[in-house]
This record gives sequence, structure tokens and C-alpha cells, in this order.
Amino acid sequence: MADRPTRRPRAENPKGFRDYFGAEVTERAAMLGRIAEVYRRHGFDPLETPAIETVEALGKFLPDVDRPNEGVFAWQEEGDWLALRYDLTAPLARVAAQYRNDLPSPYRRYAMGPVWRNEKPGPGRFRQFYQCDADTVGAPSVAADAEICAMLAAALEAAGIARGDYVIRVNNRKVLNGVLEVAGLLDPADPARMAAERGIVLRAIDKIDRLGEAGVRALLGPGRRDESGDFTKGAGLAPEAAEVVMGFMAAKAPSGAETVARLRDLVRGSATGAEGVDELETIAALLDAQGLGADRVQIDPSVVRGLGYYTGPVYEAELTFEVTDDKGRRQQFGSVAGGGRYDDLVERFTGQKVPATGVSIGVDRLLAALRARGARPAEAEPLVVVTVMDRERMADYMKMAAELRAAGLRAEVYLGNPKNFGNQMKYADRRGAALAIIEGSDEAARGVVQIKDLAAGAAIAAGASLEDWKARPAQVEAARDDLVATVSRILGR
Amino acid sequence: MADRPTRRPRAENPKGFRDYFGAEVTERAAMLGRIAEVYRRHGFDPLETPAIETVEALGKFLPDVDRPNEGVFAWQEEGDWLALRYDLTAPLARVAAQYRNDLPSPYRRYAMGPVWRNEKPGPGRFRQFYQCDADTVGAPSVAADAEICAMLAAALEAAGIARGDYVIRVNNRKVLNGVLEVAGLLDPADPARMAAERGIVLRAIDKIDRLGEAGVRALLGPGRRDESGDFTKGAGLAPEAAEVVMGFMAAKAPSGAETVARLRDLVRGSATGAEGVDELETIAALLDAQGLGADRVQIDPSVVRGLGYYTGPVYEAELTFEVTDDKGRRQQFGSVAGGGRYDDLVERFTGQKVPATGVSIGVDRLLAALRARGARPAEAEPLVVVTVMDRERMADYMKMAAELRAAGLRAEVYLGNPKNFGNQMKYADRRGAALAIIEGSDEAARGVVQIKDLAAGAAIAAGASLEDWKARPAQVEAARDDLVATVSRILGR
Repeated sequence: MADRPTRRPRAENPKGFRDYFGAEVTERAAMLGRIAEVYRRHGFDPLETPAIETVEALGKFLPDVDRPNEGVFAWQEEGDWLALRYDLTAPLARVAAQYRNDLPSPYRRYAMGPVWRNEKPGPGRFRQFYQCDADTVGAPSVAADAEICAMLAAALEAAGIARGDYVIRVNNRKVLNGVLEVAGLLDPADPARMAAERGIVLRAIDKIDRLGEAGVRALLGPGRRDESGDFTKGAGLAPEAAEVVMGFMAAKAPSGAETVARLRDLVRGSATGAEGVDELETIAALLDAQGLGADRVQIDPSVVRGLGYYTGPVYEAELTFEVTDDKGRRQQFGSVAGGGRYDDLVERFTGQKVPATGVSIGVDRLLAALRARGARPAEAEPLVVVTVMDRERMADYMKMAAELRAAGLRAEVYLGNPKNFGNQMKYADRRGAALAIIEGSDEAARGVVQIKDLAAGAAIAAGASLEDWKARPAQVEAARDDLVATVSRILGR
Repeated sequence: MADRPTRRPRAENPKGFRDYFGAEVTERAAMLGRIAEVYRRHGFDPLETPAIETVEALGKFLPDVDRPNEGVFAWQEEGDWLALRYDLTAPLARVAAQYRNDLPSPYRRYAMGPVWRNEKPGPGRFRQFYQCDADTVGAPSVAADAEICAMLAAALEAAGIARGDYVIRVNNRKVLNGVLEVAGLLDPADPARMAAERGIVLRAIDKIDRLGEAGVRALLGPGRRDESGDFTKGAGLAPEAAEVVMGFMAAKAPSGAETVARLRDLVRGSATGAEGVDELETIAALLDAQGLGADRVQIDPSVVRGLGYYTGPVYEAELTFEVTDDKGRRQQFGSVAGGGRYDDLVERFTGQKVPATGVSIGVDRLLAALRARGARPAEAEPLVVVTVMDRERMADYMKMAAELRAAGLRAEVYLGNPKNFGNQMKYADRRGAALAIIEGSDEAARGVVQIKDLAAGAAIAAGASLEDWKARPAQVEAARDDLVATVSRILGR
């Protein structure tokens, strides 16, 4: 017996995982349902891939290329390495290749579900979280990118973010490549080194919100030591070269036309850069024609997105209202969605170019934003608890609950130990029940039931006036046959 | 370049996994939504636990105790063994222990989501599948079991299974224990051996549908060799002892009252057995009072459920209509849901008894049943494809689609290469689109659009009469400003 306690399993989640209860589940499902409806109306079809993929199919596309083997939950099964998906894009690329002869082309699909990251958990940082993606595979035109941006705006509004509370910022990787090319920062003779440096530059730019200009400048140069003393190696650019990149990031002007003009100037001499600027102009014009002006979509050179696989337009949805952070500071809520064009992901499998573009919404961030914005959760449907006064008459109580349900109400019989009536009331209170039904032997003999209005009772306890109490008595007696009608009336049905 | 092909990842699911497309996703979601609504109306709250649990929290409760270390996907992370959940009951037991001071008691919860089994995949057998569970934790009374059975009936009907097409069969583990006790088959002096033998007996009985009487008799005795030559060790009961068990399984009588009388006879002398028979009688009476008679709920001693952890009532929903199996034989569809009372699972964590009971619906089986029953999937919403006649005018086409969507219709612009108009029509066909919108330079100059009715066109191709064609012409011209009104009229909106 002595070793008994140590042999008991611990009742706890693994680190970085959590459980979701009640309204947390239904609110998320309701929000995802509204977003799916927007996607569906745009002609996107649902796709659900399994949680598990082969490691070779997933590839290594997480932002943190410094630790290429970390970031995923992986294990070996009979010689094959399997892993939990870390996003919904890699499985889509696999599907697009696997079913390439059967899917319509272009293939528009949406997907929503959990993804897993084997990263160090932190406050508010979990290792399982939801994503909600929409992608178009097989459409080379930037009209597909413009469609995704417009649809993202519609999805955010359907989720409950008011117009004016968000902005979708658009950039193009080709413009950045053009800038780097013009400035002679990349050495085409050494593609591996070029890719590595380019990756460091991209990730540095992506961190401007968090690190500020000085931090980014350090990462573009020799490197940066953070507050904890950890050193991150930089791209090793000369100071003048770093200044060119910084200038590009600051190229945003008050109007989109001015920004485009500045960018065109910055990439003069680079065919890739000019193509990128043209694409930005086209996207802006297509969105403008649909009424999405600068109040909702803006060209912003500081948006690069950390992922290495983007090849053209990139976009990010930011929430512009302020919230108070952990340390009591007011700051903008920030990014809740992002995406871009990735023309090479399907080619990994097939050897043939397949253009693709899409967006991923961070579901938990968006839910947090709605809560920060004071969105009231949908009023929970009132619950009726039928109490148990006489355990021999359980069948009668269950019949009451069944009658209430048949009338469309939410009702349950108390199923704990009925001996202590106080416990039953405490239970109804903990459940947030609206009404309790009481039928003791006296009531049964007289053919009546007592209907206790728990909300009114709480109001009286909190000091409601006599008038209030008369207008809404905390308990009414009704004929047993009028149970459903009386309950419906009290609940305003 | 020579090794290029071998370095490409294969675009395929790991063995035993599959993807779900379009209606497969939405039909399942719709069915789960209808079931959730039933659970919710009975006072059950949603709970979503993560996919990953510690191996110690999950425990080993899979039916196949012969291979206790198999059946789950597990891996080691920094010393801890983690695993994917193999059902929704083990995580609930963990939650009930972890939050025991915060949850209402009794705690009614429902949960739906994928579970993973590391088993050999086969035709129609996947290693990831959906379950949809409802459980009550903390209610010792069999009224909780009766509630689950009644709710299961309501859930099946909400899912689309007609009354008369299913039956819920109820048994009680205590009755079986009583029978074994009376027959002297279990040796209380050797609990380990007793548990092992009892497990083999349970699993043998559970296979009666598949193995037939002779197969079960072999498993109760020395063991059984299957067609492939594999040998499964039996419980080692003497032939007379095996006959007692076979007699118990066959104790079902035409009426519930007769079955109860037979069972009471079989367990005479065993207190546990008598308790089990009393519980069965109470459940039947409670269900009867709610109108669930023998057409929907039956006491059936052959139901034992394979899982070792059940301690009292067990139940199973069977679909009674016939379907044609792989080999062309007609047979009953069989089980789609099952559950029972497990009073010991939470105690693993806390050391304190916490009674619990619940049911799990096999979602994929139930969907297959609905399809076998000819349930038509909800009519897909008609899709309108706006074709691209002039790629310079993409903004105009996108505006048309946006207008159609604003009127609540499903619409998309063709985003492939627009050069070949035939490809656009082929695409619309593959998408099952209802209408195509065409606006070339001629139409644009005249301020009109062509609206092509693809369903009508297909009917003409299939030989519709001239009258049909006049009543529903395959193509109409409309003023550009009347686009939305005309499309709405054709689609009957």
C-alpha cells in the first residue's frame, strides 16, 4: 500500500496543452461556421486531411530554419517517420499533387482544424491551436490573390470585426528581391548562401513590430543580443546595404499610388522587382473596383511574412484597435491572419510548377480579439433543472424533462444524490440554470409543481425592491398539466 | 540530376489515413450538429480536450489486452511519453479528476472529434476516425444510464435513422458476473487470473455476431484457430462451464419481463447478479415511462461490450435494416454506438470512487448507414461561374461575382488560364455549376450578359424535347443591370 500514491497517474495535460469547456467550444464553432459560409459563398469547397502525415510529405517549412528538425511532433512507425501536421498548407500541397488528375483546376478549398507545434510553451502559447485556411491552387493570376484578400476582409467582418478595426496590408516578395538585387546584396553565383542570407533578411524584417528599427538593423548586420543575453546571428550585410533594406521597409507613403511610385523607383533596373510592383498595382486596382479602398487594404513594404516559401504577393490582416498588454501598456492588437503566394510547394512532389496562393486565420487570436473588443458571447440558452424530491418517482421527473425538451427547451433531471435539497440548489446555481422545478409529495397529491425562478431569486437576494419582487415573483405554482406552458411563458418563449 | 526523382517526396497519405472532400466534410458536420443539439437540449455541455495526452493519463483500456502496448500512437518527448488519444472516455476521466473542484457534479458533457488507433489498417478500417460521445460523471443512479439510452435514441433519430430501423440493446455486467459466480467459474482467491479469464470470456461473447456460436464456444474453451491458421488462446473453461455462459447469452425472451425472469433465475444466489437484474428492471421501467418500449429498447444478455472497464449497465445501438456486404450477402447493418457504466476510471487518478456512464457513437459507421439507407445529401447550393472572355476586364468579372454573393448566392470567377473557352466550360462542368455568366466585348458594348443554364444544357444534350427546351432555354440574355435579378429568378430564389 505504501507505494500506492506514486503509482497513481497525474491528472494533467501535457505541458503546452489545454482543455476547452462549454462556451469556449461553441463560440469557436460558431465563428468558424460564419467564416466557412463566406468561403463557401466564394466557391471554396471544404477539405479535411488527417492529423498525421509522413515527415517527407510535410517537408520543413516552419519559419525557424535555424532548428530545422524541431517544431514538429514526429515518431517512427515501422521504418516510416510520421508527424502531426504543423499547418494546413503542407497537407494541401500533398493533396493537390496526390489528386491532381481528379480535382478541378483551379482548385479552391478551405480547411479548418487543429495544428501542432512542438515548441516551448509559454503564457498564452499552446502546442495545439486552430487554423482556418482558404487557398486557390492552379491559378497563376494575381486576381486569385486579390480574391483571397477581399474574401479575408469579408471573413473578418463575418467573424465580428467591424470595418475600420482591421486593415489588410499587402506586399510582394518580388519587390524585396528586386531591391536586394539592385543593391547588389545577393550573389547569384552562390545560391545556397544567397538563400540563407535572404532568409535571415526576411525574418529580420518580419520582426520589426517586436524588435523595432534598431533590432532589425542589428539582425541585418552582424547579429543581435537580446535582453536574456542570447545572441542571434545576423545576415552580415554591410551598413550601407542594411540601409537599403531599411529604406525599403519605410517606403510606405500616405497613398497607395505614392507607395507604388516609390517602390518602382527603388527597384529600377530589376525585372523581377518591376514585375512585383506591377502585381501590387493590379491587386490594388482589382480590390478598388470591388470597393475595398485604403481603409481596408493597403500596400505596405514592411510586410514580408516569415515563411521562406512565399514567391509573390504576401498579405497580413492586422487589427488596429488598442488593447492593454500583460504589462499594462496600450498597444495595437496586431496580426490575426496572413498568407501569400507559394508557387513551388506542389512542385516538390510532381516536378511541375503549380501556382498557389492562400491565407491562414489564427483562430484563437481572432477569438481573443473578439473578446478584447467586448463581443458578448451568444446568450446561453436557459436551462431548466428538474429537482428530485422523492427518488422513487424518478420516472415522473424524467417525464417532465422530456416534455420540456419536446417543446424545444433545454432541461435536465438532477442526477446526484438527492438527499440534501440544498445540494440540488447549489448544483442548479453552478450550472447557471434559469429555473428549477420542484414536485414533492404534497405537490404531487395536489397535481401541481413549483417553478422557482433562480435569476429572480438571486435578484431578491441582491436587494431587489418589493415592486420588483411582485412583478417577478421568485416562485410560482402551476398545475402539473400546465408545466410546459408556464415554463415557456416565464422564459419568454 | 540522375537522383532527382528519388529525392521527390511521395504525395500520399500514410497507410490507414484518408482525406475527406466537399460534401463528405459538410455532411458529417451537419450530422454532428444535429446530434450535438440533442445532447445540448438534455443539459450536456461541450468539452474539447487536446489530441495529445500523457501515456500515463490515457492508461491502457483498449479492448485488445493481449497486446497492451500496441494500439496507440506514442512517442517520447524530453523523458515523458505522449500519445494521441484513442477514444474520448480516457481524456474525460482525466478532466473529471483534474477539475474535480470546479466542475458541477454530476457533470454532463459531450465531445466530438477524431481519435487515433495504431492498428493494422484494412478495407474501410482507418487509423483516424470520429467519435461523438456523451457522458455523465458523478451520477451513481441508473437513472443516468436510462437517460443516456433515451438520449441515444433521440440522437439516432435526429441523425436521420428512422424509428424502427434501430434498437438499443441493454445488458448489465453485474448479471454476467453473477452468472459466472453462481457457476463457480471465477476463483476469487486469485484475482489476477480471475480478471484475465473474465476478460477472455467478455471478448469471446462480444464476438458472437462475427464468429457464431461455435466460434464463441471454442474461445470459451481451449481456443480458436481462424481460417488463416492464426490461433487465439481461449478462457480454458470446462465444457459444462462454457455451456452456462452460452445459456446466459441465449436468455433473451420475447418480452423484457420474461428475459428479466430468466436472468433472475440464472443468478439466484449471487448478490451482485441480483443487483444487476434489479438495475436492468429499473432502466426498462424508466424508459418505458418515457414511451421508449421494446420497439426501441430491449434487454439482451448477449450484449457485453468488449472493453474491460465497464462495471454495470452496458448498451449498444444496432441498426436493424439489411445491407449487402462486400461478398454480396444481405446482412443487418449492425452496431453504430455503444457504451456503459465505468465507475472506476476516475478513481485511477484520485483514489476516490466517481461513478460515470456514457455512450460513444461511431460517426463514420453512422454516416455509412445513412448512405446505405439512401439518405440524399442535402442539395448542394447552386454555383454560378463567371467566365473570363477578356482578361483585361477581370475587375468587371470580379464585380459581378461580388454582386451575386451580396445577394446571398454562391459565385466565383474562373481563375485558370482563360485562353481556351472550352476549358472554362469543362471547369464549370467539373464543379457541377448551375449557371455560367458570359460577357464578351460584344455583350459589354451592348450592356448585356449571357446566362448559360448548364443543367438545362445537359438535359438538351441528353435529348430533352423541343417543348422542354422552350420552357427552359439553355441560354438567356439579360441586361447587365439585371444580372442578379435574372440569375436569382432562374435559380428559383
